[in-house]
Amino acid sequence: MTEAKFEKKDLKKRSNNLSDWYTDVVQKAELADYGPAKGSMVIRPYGFALWERVQEIFNTWIKAYGVENAYFPLLIPMSLMEKEKSHVKGFSPELAVVTHGGGKKLAEPLAVRPTSETIMYHMYAKWIKSHRDLPLMINQWNNVVRWELRTYLFLRTAEFLWQEGHTAHATEAEAIKMQEQALGWYKNLYEEYFAMPVIAGVKSEKEKFAGAKSTYGVEALMPDGKALQAGTSHNLGQNFSKAFEISFQDAEGKSQHVWQTSWGLSTRSLGGLFLTHGDDQGLLMPPKLAPTQVVILPINNSQSEKMIENILERLVNINVRASVDNREELSLGRKINHWELKGVPLRFEIGDKELTSNSVTVIRRDTFEKLSLKLDQEFGDNILKLLSDIQNHLHTTAKKFLEDNTHEIDSYVQFKEIMNTKRGFIKAYWCEDSECEAKIKEETKATTRVRTLDQKESGGKCVQCGKPAKFIWHFAQAY
Amino acid sequence: MTEAKFEKKDLKKRSNNLSDWYTDVVQKAELADYGPAKGSMVIRPYGFALWERVQEIFNTWIKAYGVENAYFPLLIPMSLMEKEKSHVKGFSPELAVVTHGGGKKLAEPLAVRPTSETIMYHMYAKWIKSHRDLPLMINQWNNVVRWELRTYLFLRTAEFLWQEGHTAHATEAEAIKMQEQALGWYKNLYEEYFAMPVIAGVKSEKEKFAGAKSTYGVEALMPDGKALQAGTSHNLGQNFSKAFEISFQDAEGKSQHVWQTSWGLSTRSLGGLFLTHGDDQGLLMPPKLAPTQVVILPINNSQSEKMIENILERLVNINVRASVDNREELSLGRKINHWELKGVPLRFEIGDKELTSNSVTVIRRDTFEKLSLKLDQEFGDNILKLLSDIQNHLHTTAKKFLEDNTHEIDSYVQFKEIMNTKRGFIKAYWCEDSECEAKIKEETKATTRVRTLDQKESGGKCVQCGKPAKFIWHFAQAY
Repeated sequence: MTEAKFEKKDLKKRSNNLSDWYTDVVQKAELADYGPAKGSMVIRPYGFALWERVQEIFNTWIKAYGVENAYFPLLIPMSLMEKEKSHVKGFSPELAVVTHGGGKKLAEPLAVRPTSETIMYHMYAKWIKSHRDLPLMINQWNNVVRWELRTYLFLRTAEFLWQEGHTAHATEAEAIKMQEQALGWYKNLYEEYFAMPVIAGVKSEKEKFAGAKSTYGVEALMPDGKALQAGTSHNLGQNFSKAFEISFQDAEGKSQHVWQTSWGLSTRSLGGLFLTHGDDQGLLMPPKLAPTQVVILPINNSQSEKMIENILERLVNINVRASVDNREELSLGRKINHWELKGVPLRFEIGDKELTSNSVTVIRRDTFEKLSLKLDQEFGDNILKLLSDIQNHLHTTAKKFLEDNTHEIDSYVQFKEIMNTKRGFIKAYWCEDSECEAKIKEETKATTRVRTLDQKESGGKCVQCGKPAKFIWHFAQAY
Repeated sequence: MTEAKFEKKDLKKRSNNLSDWYTDVVQKAELADYGPAKGSMVIRPYGFALWERVQEIFNTWIKAYGVENAYFPLLIPMSLMEKEKSHVKGFSPELAVVTHGGGKKLAEPLAVRPTSETIMYHMYAKWIKSHRDLPLMINQWNNVVRWELRTYLFLRTAEFLWQEGHTAHATEAEAIKMQEQALGWYKNLYEEYFAMPVIAGVKSEKEKFAGAKSTYGVEALMPDGKALQAGTSHNLGQNFSKAFEISFQDAEGKSQHVWQTSWGLSTRSLGGLFLTHGDDQGLLMPPKLAPTQVVILPINNSQSEKMIENILERLVNINVRASVDNREELSLGRKINHWELKGVPLRFEIGDKELTSNSVTVIRRDTFEKLSLKLDQEFGDNILKLLSDIQNHLHTTAKKFLEDNTHEIDSYVQFKEIMNTKRGFIKAYWCEDSECEAKIKEETKATTRVRTLDQKESGGKCVQCGKPAKFIWHFAQAY
């Protein structure tokens, strides 16, 4: 690593312009880089380590629930793509198409998967025969391509990584339970690990997934007041099972179509993470997700090796992910800049003073608070407490921002005013008419995000057209 | 799961025809299935669980060594593919090509990656500036496409999953050390986990990777006497660093090209695993790799729930992967067939007899030996010992087969005779001339597999042409 990379003075200020800072910090902190083809991105080791954390956490949950991982082909015959009509209509403008293979033109072009409903359900039709084969619950971690030329690292790229869960059930009630479970996992992942508060709810008819009966989603609010769709869970009803003829014999021997769900969360989530937490010094990783939770900086000329070994051993024993920056060619200042840029939650500094007093100087990345911690019996507990405090602090800060920027209104003038200025979420009655929704989008750039699920039907007037409305919806301009 | 799936009576006999058995068992044991496009394969949950085990084991090793995981784009501009001349020559006949994206014809076609040297090194050129940036050691777990229409599940498919490690170093000596390390990992993975003995060595000029200076590989011998190339590690020299202009300033400020390696192991390895171990009853999973090491079958009408809970807890505590087959709709016989087909190393049967005697009936999958084990203090140790015995037994059996089928010869008549009949490895002097190699292949279907690395130069005569030869090579017909 060259010294030049750790110069932070050039980092664009988050307090000036979030978007410029984001693009800058994602590259300077070596999370990602632009690939050679338009719309493409390279996920560098530091960014990928975060995705590996997400995989680790999510795999634990889904496997405990009985979902199994598998792998389906990347290339989908166009004829399969076209089997469910609203699905192909939704995805065909975004397809990358393989027309040549092994030096020859193909008889049938192959789509690079934009999502795997069609190819998976083609196989499900083959595998599912009896009610004893149900539920079938399979997840894939893979890459998908949806054509896109204007790259915004992590947030908008032609290829991205994700998980896609696809389940088949004997009844719609079971499918809906699964749909809710996946939504719950997403909400939990964001709230507990990403330290990001999210609004969970159902999407409007217009915003739902192409081919779904209903789509649930979690929505996060970014610091610029724009919403980020952060994970979706679809009740596919019997749309695909009818198109792909996935049927089973029930206990009475009657043939029925299965009820299906699909649900996905992508590397886009990491973009949301980087945007949400951070400051002019760089990123800020929530401890529960951070690939490195503690970095140890030995201060030059100190004979601290043994002490550092001892500390590392203590940290390993309490499952804290720690590393030591031993590079001799870098000054302490440069190292501090480097690790602040990368957002490592805790920094230890260990020099002669610490050696003499058998203590560690600990600096919090979120508050820059400096503490001296004795290397005594409570040391481990104190570190765990600090990591937990940082996790909570990040969540509290983000939650306060979300609350401060959620506007409950009932006038369209106010709606337009807010979307023209500070943005954020608007909670307002809406009549659920698509034309009305389109008009709001045209005039304010805001779209319906979700209707919260716990909401009871009430009587109100649509914020735009004044017609009767049953529910309050979350609106926002979206990424 | 329908009962029909557990009918084993239809399973083709391994003792009759290995290839028919393989294709049959891979599908019946639900390891994989054919995808809708020619040459494509679906890896089902049981097969994928094995791949996850491989990932888990291999990740531990490479991360401890300092290799980091990352992700590079799937689609590679053709102009990049063409930068290293022998590389593109080797891969262009196998490319799948995207010509259309987002509804438009692309100005430049994109290759679906057959391997990632070109796109990764395009980025490496950007990232590497100084000797302090070295070594750069990155690995990817991803999917690659090499056009192929004649599917042989796991062993020959148009798309496969693999890991590809790509490193850049300041000196060739460091690169060679890395190349050897990767080979060592592969050898260890096969010997220790797959219970498969392998021959490690260097490939001939003709068989080496397109663009490499030298290729090391591990070769396994399948029960039909054919060799399987099971993992390769390449010294790329400066071929790519010159083509992609990857250079660094050394400590003296002089500009130099980096020295590179790449190394890969794919889902093909699993095909080798399934072929190697097994019998007329189905698969045989080596315990160290098996997703399920112990399956517990409660015998009908037995009040064994509490006892089984207790056993499961004991097994979890010693990190044994166990599951219970509680399905009521299946007879014990069907269940036994099912788990034998899947090759689970140990089967427990627990009924009234076991309940009364506080013991477990344990059946080994490899020998069908039936034991009664007391649920006493030694129970856990006894199970671990059994699993270890099975692991060793599989390795010993495979090793004996390899030794019995390795023929040290010096006559070409003998060479042809062996390749016409029993096959296996032939060890013989070879002059290292490509034309001679081509002639051997034409006449015997055998190719050079490797020259072992520890071998000292000696004097001999080429088995085919009689010219002077320095080394003994392993020959075999190959998958």
